[in-house]
Formats: sequence, C-alpha cells, structure tokens
Amino acid sequence: MESSTAQAVGFTEFLKGRFYRDLLSELLGTMLLVFVSCALSAHWDGEHYSVTLISLAAGICIATIVQCLANASGSHINPVISIAFAIAGHITPVRALCYGISQCVGATLAVVFCRALTPPSLIGPYYAVNRLNPLLTPAQGVGMEAVCTFFLTFTVFATVDKSRSDLEGSGPLAIGFSVLLSHTFGFKYTGAAMNPARSLGPAIIANKWEHHWVYWIGPLIGSLVAVLLYEYVIAGDASINKLKS
Amino acid sequence: MESSTAQAVGFTEFLKGRFYRDLLSELLGTMLLVFVSCALSAHWDGEHYSVTLISLAAGICIATIVQCLANASGSHINPVISIAFAIAGHITPVRALCYGISQCVGATLAVVFCRALTPPSLIGPYYAVNRLNPLLTPAQGVGMEAVCTFFLTFTVFATVDKSRSDLEGSGPLAIGFSVLLSHTFGFKYTGAAMNPARSLGPAIIANKWEHHWVYWIGPLIGSLVAVLLYEYVIAGDASINKLKS
Amino acid sequence: MESSTAQAVGFTEFLKGRFYRDLLSELLGTMLLVFVSCALSAHWDGEHYSVTLISLAAGICIATIVQCLANASGSHINPVISIAFAIAGHITPVRALCYGISQCVGATLAVVFCRALTPPSLIGPYYAVNRLNPLLTPAQGVGMEAVCTFFLTFTVFATVDKSRSDLEGSGPLAIGFSVLLSHTFGFKYTGAAMNPARSLGPAIIANKWEHHWVYWIGPLIGSLVAVLLYEYVIAGDASINKLKS
Amino acid sequence: MESSTAQAVGFTEFLKGRFYRDLLSELLGTMLLVFVSCALSAHWDGEHYSVTLISLAAGICIATIVQCLANASGSHINPVISIAFAIAGHITPVRALCYGISQCVGATLAVVFCRALTPPSLIGPYYAVNRLNPLLTPAQGVGMEAVCTFFLTFTVFATVDKSRSDLEGSGPLAIGFSVLLSHTFGFKYTGAAMNPARSLGPAIIANKWEHHWVYWIGPLIGSLVAVLLYEYVIAGDASINKLKS
Repeated sequence: MESSTAQAVGFTEFLKGRFYRDLLSELLGTMLLVFVSCALSAHWDGEHYSVTLISLAAGICIATIVQCLANASGSHINPVISIAFAIAGHITPVRALCYGISQCVGATLAVVFCRALTPPSLIGPYYAVNRLNPLLTPAQGVGMEAVCTFFLTFTVFATVDKSRSDLEGSGPLAIGFSVLLSHTFGFKYTGAAMNPARSLGPAIIANKWEHHWVYWIGPLIGSLVAVLLYEYVIAGDASINKLKS
Repeated sequence: MESSTAQAVGFTEFLKGRFYRDLLSELLGTMLLVFVSCALSAHWDGEHYSVTLISLAAGICIATIVQCLANASGSHINPVISIAFAIAGHITPVRALCYGISQCVGATLAVVFCRALTPPSLIGPYYAVNRLNPLLTPAQGVGMEAVCTFFLTFTVFATVDKSRSDLEGSGPLAIGFSVLLSHTFGFKYTGAAMNPARSLGPAIIANKWEHHWVYWIGPLIGSLVAVLLYEYVIAGDASINKLKS
Repeated sequence: MESSTAQAVGFTEFLKGRFYRDLLSELLGTMLLVFVSCALSAHWDGEHYSVTLISLAAGICIATIVQCLANASGSHINPVISIAFAIAGHITPVRALCYGISQCVGATLAVVFCRALTPPSLIGPYYAVNRLNPLLTPAQGVGMEAVCTFFLTFTVFATVDKSRSDLEGSGPLAIGFSVLLSHTFGFKYTGAAMNPARSLGPAIIANKWEHHWVYWIGPLIGSLVAVLLYEYVIAGDASINKLKS
Repeated sequence: MESSTAQAVGFTEFLKGRFYRDLLSELLGTMLLVFVSCALSAHWDGEHYSVTLISLAAGICIATIVQCLANASGSHINPVISIAFAIAGHITPVRALCYGISQCVGATLAVVFCRALTPPSLIGPYYAVNRLNPLLTPAQGVGMEAVCTFFLTFTVFATVDKSRSDLEGSGPLAIGFSVLLSHTFGFKYTGAAMNPARSLGPAIIANKWEHHWVYWIGPLIGSLVAVLLYEYVIAGDASINKLKS
C-alpha cells in the first residue's frame, strides 16, 4: 500500500535515469525560451521591436522548442502547464514539482547568459522583467494573464488529447500559435508572460518584484480553469465520473 | 411520420445531454473570438494595430479555437457557418438556430468581459463595433463582406469534405488562414467581420447600429453562394441530384 | 491511330462534363487570386500596404485557393503552371490551353468586380497593373520574374511528386509559402507577378501595356527551367530516359 | 579491410552517378538561399527591410528549399549541417566535404547572379556581407551565432529522428521556422547567418573579411553542441553506448 502511494505521488521517479534526462530537457527548453525573450527585449536604435515581431517570435519559439523536446520531457517549459498535467493525472506531483524547479533554474540561467551576449547599453534596469502596463490595475493584469494562459493550456490539452482522431498537422505548431495569438492581443496589457518561470528569471537577476505575484496568480487561474473545463466538460471522453476518480 | 419530421427538424436534439455541451462550446468559442477582436481594437499610445498584426491575430485566433473545439460542437462560432451547415444537411435546423443564439450570447459576454479588463481611456465610443470605411457605399460594404465570407465558407466546406483524400496538414490552420487572408485585403474596407455574432456583441454594448444590417446581409450572401457552389458544382461528389434530394 | 492522337492532344476532353467543371474551377480560382491582388493595391490614407503584409497575403491567398480547388481542376490558376504540367505530361495540351483561357477570363472579370467594390479615389490609373521598378532594365525584370517563378514551379512539382514518401504536412501551404517567399524579395523589383493571367487582367482594364511582355517571358523561362530541372535531374525517378519518351 | 575503410570514409561515393546529382542539389539549394539573402539586403527608397520581413523571408526560404530538395541531397545547404550529419554518422566524411564545397560554390555564384539583376545604386560596398553589430565584441558575436545555429541544428536532428513517432506536420516547415526564430532575436546582433557558406559568398565578391572568422567559429560551436546534446542525451534512443561506437 505504502509503495503504491509512493508511486502515485511520484517518489519512485527518482529511481529512473530517464527522469534526470527529462529534468535537463525542461531546464534546457525553458532556458532557450527565456533567452529568446531577453534578446527580444533589447532596444536597438532606441526602439523596441513591434508587437507583430514579438508575437511571431514568441509563437514560433514555443513551436520550435516543443518540436525539439516533446519526445523527451513533454516540453512543458512552464510551471503552470506542469501543474495542469499533474491535476489531470498525466504526470506525478513529484515530477511536476521537479519540472517546476528545473524550469525556474533554466529561466534564471538564460538571463545571465543573454546579458553576457548583449551590449549593456541596450539593456535598461528592467531588462526582460514582465511589467503591467501602468494604465492597468493589478486585478486587470491578473485577468488578462488568466485569459492568455487559458488559450495556451486549453490548446495544449486539446492537442495532446489521445481520444481525438480529427486532428492532423503539427501539434507543436498548434501550441506555438496559441502563444502567438495571446501575444498579439495581450502583449500591450501585461507582456503576455503566461509563465511564472519566464517571469521569475529576469525578476531575480534584475531584483525587480513589483506586481510579480500577478504573473503567478494570473497564469495559475487561467490554466486551472482551462484544464478543468477541457477535461471535465469539452473533451470527447469527459464525464463527471472523471472528477470523482 | 411525425416523429421522423421532428428528428429531421432537430427537436430531438434537446433530449441529448451532449447537445448542451455543444451549445456551451459554441458560446465559449465565440466569446474567445470576440474577446480577442475587442482587445485588438484598443488603441495604445493613440495608435491602432497594423493590418498585418490584426490579420495574423484574426487568422491564428480562428485556427486556435477550431483546434480546441472542433471535436465538441464543430466550432462554427459564426451564425452564417451554422446556417451553411444546415443548408448542406450536416446539422439540423434546430441545432443551427440554437448555435446561433449561443454564439450571439457568447459575443455579447465577451465585450462585457473585455471592457472590464481594458483601461477605459483606450476605448472610444465605437469600441470594437464593425464600421464601414466612410468612403464606401453600403452596397460596396455588402459586396466586400460577401467576398470575405465566401473565402471562409468555401474553405470550411473544402476542408471538411470527407470525399477528399488529397488533403494533409492541419484543417484548423487552413480555415484560420482563409480568415487571415480576408483580413489582409478586406479589413480597411469593412473590418472583415464575416460574422454577424461578432458584429452584434459590440453593437449591443455600445448601442451603435449604423450599417449594422450590412454585417448580416453581406456574410449571409457570401456564405450561401459558397456552400451552393461547393456542394453542387466543385465538390468531388457534387451533382444536380444532390440539389433535388 | 488518329483517335489515339486526338486523345493525346486532348480533343476528347471536350466530351467529358467534368472538363467544364474544371474550367469553371480555374476561372473562379484565378478570379479570387486577382481580386485579392487588386484589393491589396488600393492605397488607403495615401499609403500602400507594406511588403510584409503583401507577401503574407499573396502566399496565404495561393494556399487557400489551392486548398479549395486542388481536388477539382488541380488549381493551377496560372498559365505557366498549366504549360509546365502539359510539358511534364500530366495534362493534355488542349487542357492547358483551355485552362489558360479560363484563367485570363477570370483575371479580367476580377479587376472589373474589384473596381466596383473599391472607392475610385483609392485607385490610380495603374490600379493593380504590374510594373517594373523604374531602376530596373527590362532584362533584369525578366530575370527576376524568372527566379520568382522558378521557386513557384519547382515547389509545385516537388510537392505533387507521387514518387516521394518523405513529405508530410499541407501541400497547399508549401506551395503558398513559395509564393510568400518570392514576394518578400521580388516585390520591390517587379511586383513578383509570376503569372501572366494575373498581369493581363489589370493591363486590359487599365489599357497599360508598358513592359507587359516581361510578365510573360520571365515567368515562362523560370517555369520551364524549373520543370525540366525537377523532372529530369532532381526527382527521385528522374532519368534521361524520361526525356526521350 | 582497406576497401571497407574507403567505404566508411566515403571514397566510393564518387562511383555513384547519384552523388553528382546530390552535389548539384546542394549547389542549387545554397544558390537559391544566398540569392534571396542578397536580394533582401538591397535598400529600396534608402530603407532596409524590417526584421519582421527578413525573419519571415529567411524562415520560409529554408522551408521551401528543404521541401524542394530534401529527397535529393537531404538539402543541408549549410556546411555546419553537413558536418553535424557526418559526426552523427548519417553521411560519410567525403560526402560532407564535397557538399561543403558545392555549397560554397553555389553561394558565390548566387551573389554574382543577384548583383546582375539588382540596380547598382541599391547595393553598398558591403552588399549582403554578414557584419557584427558595432556594439558587439567578436566573442559576443561568436556566442550569438552559436545560439542561433544551436536552434537550427537541434531542430534538424529532432525532426529527422526516425525513432520518433510523435511528430506530424511538415518537417521542412519546422526546420524553416527554427531559422525564422533565430532571425527574430539574432538578426540585429550578427545578422543570424548560421551558415559559413552564406557568409563566404558575399565576402568573396565584396572582398570584405572583417570578423569573417566569427561566422565560421560561432555556427560550428553551436552546431556541435546541438548534435552531441541531441544524439547522446535527448534523443529517445540516446545512450552513452552510441558515443563509444
């Protein structure tokens, strides 16, 4: 009995060599993602990139990383995605926790690495830190981050749903395009972070924490609503029975 | 005989639990679509987004929502698409009507929700209401909305055509890209709405009704021409017999 | 013997009802393509669209039309593609000729139709007519149109090659993206027309014929080089024997 | 024994007719790629293209060329990709070397060809030569080229990995999109060349060699790290045993 509980919680993960490969995969994927975010926040010739370019880059970045790492760790590269998979029973709680830690470490390393490659004059004190648009209240920021993340998590679960036979085409691209979408409408509001690890890395290095909680609470709410709505209502095999089990 | 008529018209839909799930899916999908349209009509720094960004966002938005909900309700999220499917005999008239109502409710809720998350100073009195370019006559507006919607409905029917074996790749993406296309050339003319529910929601909340009829008649004409031309002329199994049945 | 010659040249095509459906498909497809080109050449607020928008629109336009009509006529919507298919023996010479005529009629109707929907103040005397950049010599224009069309025809033949088993993903999108590509680098040179029918329609309606021959010779050369190089050198089943047969 | 060594090194390649077809394919592919890069570096109306356009063009260019030539030579069109495939044991060293020479010849021819089609007034003395942003140190340039190329090589190996069954969708598009991505964030730093042949061609014709070594060392490092990390750590069938063999 005890050993089966240990298995359900996931402590037995530590015994598998592949588990450490997966942690490395999450660290690498999140590092690449945050590196790209940092490099895109440099302001060459005194100008930031357009929302069009940033949206395209963010979406294709997720598509590319998922294409590369989906077969290893599943390429969550986002703590709220790992939590959603744990809630839906796809991975163990221990795995979700360890993924989350790997993701935060990768994100922090990425900022250090990108700063080393970027001329200091292009980096302000807020370099790559997610910030609310000053016109927004924190509650509005939470709401917009929740909507953006809802799109992401809902698309992830709809795309990896094995009970569907109607989908063809690239899964990584479909997931990446949901991120592209959230950036088009959400970037001016909150930066469309949708990812606490991505927000944490720059905040640690820059030591800027204003409204940082918004970037944890908003994505968590959006992701939770998405996974519950998809798994228990929309999915082809959804049922109230699932909730009881 | 009477019960089979009731079945053909679709009154028996109300007996299936899954029907209500499908109505929720249409409400949710249209709400997400109109939320994105509203958020994109805010004018940050006094400037609207470029046609390039809006086209990309609109196309990827449709692709993402269809990817997420196709397996539930079919993800019409547009009354003229539901009407076209009813005309082609894919769904019952009752289902088309109920979908249409769900779509209009979802669209209206989306505007309320998006206004709550957007700073009031970024929203004018016409926030997200579809308007004709003042250089256009209403007849030209009807024509351009018809052409834009023709692309959408024709692509939807060509993509879901089960008699075709020549198509690979993502169906949701092909449909989303037809919407991207219509926005590139049609946005400056009429806003490339192509969707009466999308037009209705903001009109209700803003109480602005000028040329509103254009956004019902244009898409209806375009969609009808597309479904008749595809089903009775272009489709691999098209025949004049279909028309008689 | 005579009847088999008639069959090889394609005179028997006229006996099949489906042949007329295919001609309608080519007319419709080219009409949609040229309609989009015309609508995109309007200059709202005194400004033309950016090369980015035009490239995206042109590529997705081709992808969408091929998605819609590939199963009917093959969706050539371009005389030099029809000629290339005739040279490679995929279609009869009669079919190529009749497709070409349908395409030119469709292109001309599109210009008439688009002018009716567009405010006259947005249309100059050269509305949608392909013109060489004044810095270019006609020979340079021929060369650039040939390179642009080479990409298109080469991609079409590589994508429809039945001897390949290594390709997945959407064929229409791959073809559309080759057109997007040619617009990014070629639009400023010549307009990246790559299609004599597309060039002819606006020239007829506007009665502007300067350098018009460039838009026939360039695409023809590029398309011929592409089909010969693909079919006789690069294709998996290419051989010098093919050339002899 | 000797003949099997000759086979392993690849000297027997020269006996196969198909080998020369493959060399032509690499020459053609690299020529097309560098032609596009050159045409995009012209400055019409005194302005360069936006990073958005250049990223889109670069990514779709790679996707299109791989779609066209993957079945012939594998469409490496980049010396560091050929070297990576040789290291991973997919091709012989002789083939990698001959591919590299073909690629460099194709790149040089492309510059000559593109100059002939482009008005001289649009070409400065540095026409299409890759240059470091003057704010960067050469070491930073090496680092950024390595990161950009890491994305490319890692995506190539993840996409062609035959042990994966989880990928659907277009392989050429996935690879092209990794190049699009690297251009979005890397173009302002170094030009996001990622390809010594692409850098060499313009350098030869313009006779400009400042920091040219950066464009060999950076891509080589990034590509080596990617192939080793993918093949020996991340791949489904990765193992330390592979390294020993």
